[in-house]
Amino acid sequence: MADNASVSKRDRSSVFHSWSAQGSLDPLPLAGGEGTRVWDHDGKEYLDFSSMLVNVNIGHQHPAVVEAIQKQAAQLATVAPAHASEIRAEAAEAILRHTPEKFEKVFFTNGGADANENAIRMARQVTGRDKVISRYRSYHGNTGAAIVATGDWRRVPNEYATGHVHVFGPYLYRSEFWAETQEQECERALHHLRRVVEVEGPQSVAAILLESIPGTAGILVPPPGYLAGVRKIADEFGIVLILDEVMAGFARAGEWFAFQGQDVVPDLITFAKGVNSGYVPLGGVIVSSEIAHAFDERVFPGGLTYSGHPLAAASAVASIEAFEREGIVENAKRIGQDVLGPGLAKLAEKHDVIGEVRGTGVFWALELVEDRATKKPLAASGIGALKKKLIADGLLPFTADNRLHVVPPAVVTDEEATRGLELIDSALGSL
Amino acid sequence: MADNASVSKRDRSSVFHSWSAQGSLDPLPLAGGEGTRVWDHDGKEYLDFSSMLVNVNIGHQHPAVVEAIQKQAAQLATVAPAHASEIRAEAAEAILRHTPEKFEKVFFTNGGADANENAIRMARQVTGRDKVISRYRSYHGNTGAAIVATGDWRRVPNEYATGHVHVFGPYLYRSEFWAETQEQECERALHHLRRVVEVEGPQSVAAILLESIPGTAGILVPPPGYLAGVRKIADEFGIVLILDEVMAGFARAGEWFAFQGQDVVPDLITFAKGVNSGYVPLGGVIVSSEIAHAFDERVFPGGLTYSGHPLAAASAVASIEAFEREGIVENAKRIGQDVLGPGLAKLAEKHDVIGEVRGTGVFWALELVEDRATKKPLAASGIGALKKKLIADGLLPFTADNRLHVVPPAVVTDEEATRGLELIDSALGSL
Ligand SMILES: Cc1ncc(COP(=O)(O)O)c(C=O)c1O
Ligand SMILES: Cc1ncc(COP(=O)(O)O)c(C=O)c1O
Repeated sequence: MADNASVSKRDRSSVFHSWSAQGSLDPLPLAGGEGTRVWDHDGKEYLDFSSMLVNVNIGHQHPAVVEAIQKQAAQLATVAPAHASEIRAEAAEAILRHTPEKFEKVFFTNGGADANENAIRMARQVTGRDKVISRYRSYHGNTGAAIVATGDWRRVPNEYATGHVHVFGPYLYRSEFWAETQEQECERALHHLRRVVEVEGPQSVAAILLESIPGTAGILVPPPGYLAGVRKIADEFGIVLILDEVMAGFARAGEWFAFQGQDVVPDLITFAKGVNSGYVPLGGVIVSSEIAHAFDERVFPGGLTYSGHPLAAASAVASIEAFEREGIVENAKRIGQDVLGPGLAKLAEKHDVIGEVRGTGVFWALELVEDRATKKPLAASGIGALKKKLIADGLLPFTADNRLHVVPPAVVTDEEATRGLELIDSALGSL
Repeated sequence: MADNASVSKRDRSSVFHSWSAQGSLDPLPLAGGEGTRVWDHDGKEYLDFSSMLVNVNIGHQHPAVVEAIQKQAAQLATVAPAHASEIRAEAAEAILRHTPEKFEKVFFTNGGADANENAIRMARQVTGRDKVISRYRSYHGNTGAAIVATGDWRRVPNEYATGHVHVFGPYLYRSEFWAETQEQECERALHHLRRVVEVEGPQSVAAILLESIPGTAGILVPPPGYLAGVRKIADEFGIVLILDEVMAGFARAGEWFAFQGQDVVPDLITFAKGVNSGYVPLGGVIVSSEIAHAFDERVFPGGLTYSGHPLAAASAVASIEAFEREGIVENAKRIGQDVLGPGLAKLAEKHDVIGEVRGTGVFWALELVEDRATKKPLAASGIGALKKKLIADGLLPFTADNRLHVVPPAVVTDEEATRGLELIDSALGSL
């Protein structure tokens, strides 16, 4: 039987890992899971408060999704995108059940990066313009255009794409606009965006690409009015508004799509992760009627071998049906309002290391600081210690920079959420 | 029960398709398959001589691969890339069983495009240089860098990546070098490549990226000595040699990797398609020890949510084991030598429309021409008529430009290959 040590050793000798120096990795081997729990090969159990990479929204091993994959695998595992596939059409229909009227078609990809690549492509093609404006605090994927649309450090060694411009977005806690209230932050962030559009030349701007709620960048729920203001700027200058719902969508933010909790409707929506909780690689672009029909006569110059993959489609259909049947979006919203929101607020009262609590649904961040007055980010060693303690205590955390993200599956129960908060409480206490 | 018309209708109302004008599509709905056969919803059967997008190398619905997917789905469908996964390590080990000594690690992606993106990234990082040289006659995927590395028409509306340079490769039938023999074509293509490296500035060239056998571009088996010559140029100037085996690998060319039938070993190998026949989206980069260890201390700035996905890994392990057990690579080689090669040569004797037959294994192209002397490509209407006739007669074809590609699964039997040749014979006769 495999144990942690043997699996880790095999991993280290043959697998090259994402975003890492390969020499110092000590990956935790996972053997199985169910709902909010996972376990390793040594029989230790963890509460999964990471949802892996914030993608297992339906929890681990949901029986209906597993069965749908197994059934489709037995019927037909792969179909080229040029053919039609019943399950692919069903998946598109299931997704479109939850979008505003203006959306008509779905272009399927394998993940979030190529979803954004193809949304950017659509925007450039329909506008005849080149530039894409996105936020510095953002992550949009690791491929050519997506990684340069990305604002965080991962962009810097990868700047081989043209036509990208970055702006600062609203983030009052560390305002780039010398703002003191959310209203001021919102207004100034919109002013800044408008000024960048104006000086870049509106006739050169194809798209504004934003995460509805920037996720890895810190779960930066926009202040009321910000996205509506962005929509207005986009409309004024004929710019396509792309909202990246890869992380924020499908119950994460307590809504089917995070923008539905806000005051905006985009032109293109990109998705991945929560659509099928990553049981099979899947992503895509939800396309408005207007943009879809712009390609009725002209060739869309993008595509991929596994666009609309039957196994991926089957898992999305089963997952969306389970969401509907089991009220998973509603659960996420309620857990955020009743358990995680109040619980994390209490932790902030108790632990000075918490500079700010932000979030909604099952999508929360604790901004950890050395000092509340200076807001100096908690040092990497502090985050490392916190992470280690949480894992030792049986909670899988998601950390980014100086933050602990509290991102359990959307099916998390009150008891599990409460237990997770207790473990976080105790780990923060040990800092 | 669904019929072709109803599935096609649902597809057309909700699914946005790759590389197409959406208004005029009439996709064939596929309901199931087995081995080299597929069938639609009206009960019509087809001999699959396309392998979908030249990816179903093991044939449709191989029971061992289906079972492996079902079993892994029941155990653990998704694991974040930062954790270790036993099945992921097994998949890496299975792939590395068939590569030359110098390869040590596998970086997994979701498909071919992001495999090339990450190979290019590795080459740029380790060399500290920017430029990537690739062929005009090539396809490398639809994302930012991959689509600009691509040489064919699909690059042109997508030129938003920097650092790409294109060269002409050897293609005697339509020589760019005024050559008259394969030897001359080879020598001149190498001279041309060397000149481009020299004038671009060797110290600026990170990688030469080539399909071992350009696939969609026409199954252009390189003349003996070409890839060895490229290897020499790469070595001379410290350039990383990336061979794209996405389409040519895993039995397609009658070898595990097409370069193994030639006189070269690259530094990075990109793969997808045949590794698991696309039963689950999967691709990746096979990394030499030297390049893998260059990232021991330094962070590799690339990654994706579904890197090393357990279902994809399970399907790859099962598929590679079936290849080994059933001699699928050997079957592809033998079918090429004994049935498809001689059979297509006979068709060329009979049908003037065939300008050239090229290929190896289960990887063949018929170059169709209006006139053998002028080599004028067969008009699109001719290709359209051929395609229609083949589908009507029960053969799913793969066409590109003025070519019919003869690319059945690598498990094709002598009888099926012979039957396919008969259908092609009859369709060519009807032109
Ligand atoms: C908002 C957002 N967009 C895009 C991506 C990229 O998705 P993928 O890793 O599937 O390419 C991510 C991944 O974390 C994401 O969080
Ligand atoms: C040689 C080659 N490289 C890369 C790709 C891209 O693969 P994918 O469509 O999985 O992104 C293809 C697809 O046809 C290919 O033939």
